Amino acid sequence: MRTYLDCYPCFLRQTLAALRLITDREEEQKRILDLVMQTLPSLPLAHTPPRIAKTVYEIITRETGVEDPYREIKRTSNQQALAALPELTTIIRQKPDPLRAAASLAISGNLIDFGVQHEGFTLSNSLQSHFPDRFGLDDFSVFARQLPAVSKLLYIGDNAGEIVADKIFITFMKNAHPQLKVGFAVRGAPIINDVTMDDARQVGMDEVAVLVDSGCRAPALLEEEMSPEMADWFRQATMVIAKGQGNYESLSQSECDIFFLLQCKCPVVADDLNTPVGSMIFKYHPGSRGN
Amino acid sequence: MRTYLDCYPCFLRQTLAALRLITDREEEQKRILDLVMQTLPSLPLAHTPPRIAKTVYEIITRETGVEDPYREIKRTSNQQALAALPELTTIIRQKPDPLRAAASLAISGNLIDFGVQHEGFTLSNSLQSHFPDRFGLDDFSVFARQLPAVSKLLYIGDNAGEIVADKIFITFMKNAHPQLKVGFAVRGAPIINDVTMDDARQVGMDEVAVLVDSGCRAPALLEEEMSPEMADWFRQATMVIAKGQGNYESLSQSECDIFFLLQCKCPVVADDLNTPVGSMIFKYHPGSRGN
Repeated sequence: MRTYLDCYPCFLRQTLAALRLITDREEEQKRILDLVMQTLPSLPLAHTPPRIAKTVYEIITRETGVEDPYREIKRTSNQQALAALPELTTIIRQKPDPLRAAASLAISGNLIDFGVQHEGFTLSNSLQSHFPDRFGLDDFSVFARQLPAVSKLLYIGDNAGEIVADKIFITFMKNAHPQLKVGFAVRGAPIINDVTMDDARQVGMDEVAVLVDSGCRAPALLEEEMSPEMADWFRQATMVIAKGQGNYESLSQSECDIFFLLQCKCPVVADDLNTPVGSMIFKYHPGSRGN
Repeated sequence: MRTYLDCYPCFLRQTLAALRLITDREEEQKRILDLVMQTLPSLPLAHTPPRIAKTVYEIITRETGVEDPYREIKRTSNQQALAALPELTTIIRQKPDPLRAAASLAISGNLIDFGVQHEGFTLSNSLQSHFPDRFGLDDFSVFARQLPAVSKLLYIGDNAGEIVADKIFITFMKNAHPQLKVGFAVRGAPIINDVTMDDARQVGMDEVAVLVDSGCRAPALLEEEMSPEMADWFRQATMVIAKGQGNYESLSQSECDIFFLLQCKCPVVADDLNTPVGSMIFKYHPGSRGN
């Protein structure tokens, strides 16, 4: 998905949110916001929003010297979600279709996103509400039909905290289909509250998946920046699941088959998907070359 | 009120809203949005938001050659509100405190604001709902106590459409206090959907007030830009009523006594007023030098 003009106010909003975690000095915040405003005109509209966001966050890191302003927030998200893991697992086991319930939880978990919104949604709040059965786009049946034949599954993570829901979903997939080998892709560097290798280890994702450093220093998987390891997984996987808006924005034109699981959180993505803001999305994107 | 950093995403949002009324060509919209982003860093944070917005809209006018992109929207707002005037007047007459009900309507009318929001609120929708009795800040009793002694009232208008509610409020004030001479201030040039001399005439405001060209080419009254006529009114008025967020933003530090009537529509103004977004505000600002 390319960048739309409505993304520009949002780039400034994200800049402010990150800067406020780093410094209380408004003068310094203004100086860096100015730099962002001066830089944005030079970036092509044809780029995807995460590719532009990457440059924005690079400015913030370079100017403040702070690599990971969301470190503590991510740690707290991971811990809170981990604390809820046993009860969430119990709830899913009691559902008529546990795999679908686990998918629903994984999409609910995508609400933990400090790039798009700032309220502290955590998986530990009112657990029962995290299993809505109605998806705005619902290709779950396509997924469920394909899954038994899949040997290598690439799961592209999105945010800290949310990854606990992903871990549960992966666990239920593996329980149902023990042949599955799963690779879990993380960002190549801290960016917003996106999942890094550290976060994946904090929640024990390595118990259920091979952790793959995507090499991407953006809030999304950028195909042009993949590490060799990531490129191998992307080429060899017989199924790809991409979580969250960022990965949708960067991969919606991909030549590969991808299942996009996300909460539709902004009007621009809602327009692109032709669904209302707030929709739960389980979308099958049939690529032109297959995987 | 000075400008806060959260106003910057909003300046971009307003730029896009205005540009989209003028042209469908995204390339042209992007070119002008870029100019705005390149210009904003040079404007001091100490300026009020309407003063910065003025520069933003000047760029739009200069680059597109379109003086008044909201002309049709304003005309429609005025007509729709005018159509509701008789019924609104009847409703107010039946209220236990008609003057307070008319004030309430005037504040409700402030929802017609294309700078802050884009949904087509019109006074003709569900008329009964336009008389909420609960104000977030409520200095109506101070106003009602002062009014009988007022001879010259300056009423600083805000938006087209809304001015019909202002006209009703002024009419009820004059009915109760026939000694009142009212000046109604309009913007010195078209800006967003703010009231101009044309708009005021469209709704027959000249039947109840002397129309005063403020001289200000901003979405607010800027004290440093007042026309001589406006300055006279501002100095001589024994009461000043200022409608809307823009006038609050530009006049909240004024040395003059002012009653601010507005809908609190954005988080920045809400913080400044210490009320929730969505509050109806009837606030007395006692100036340091009186009027």
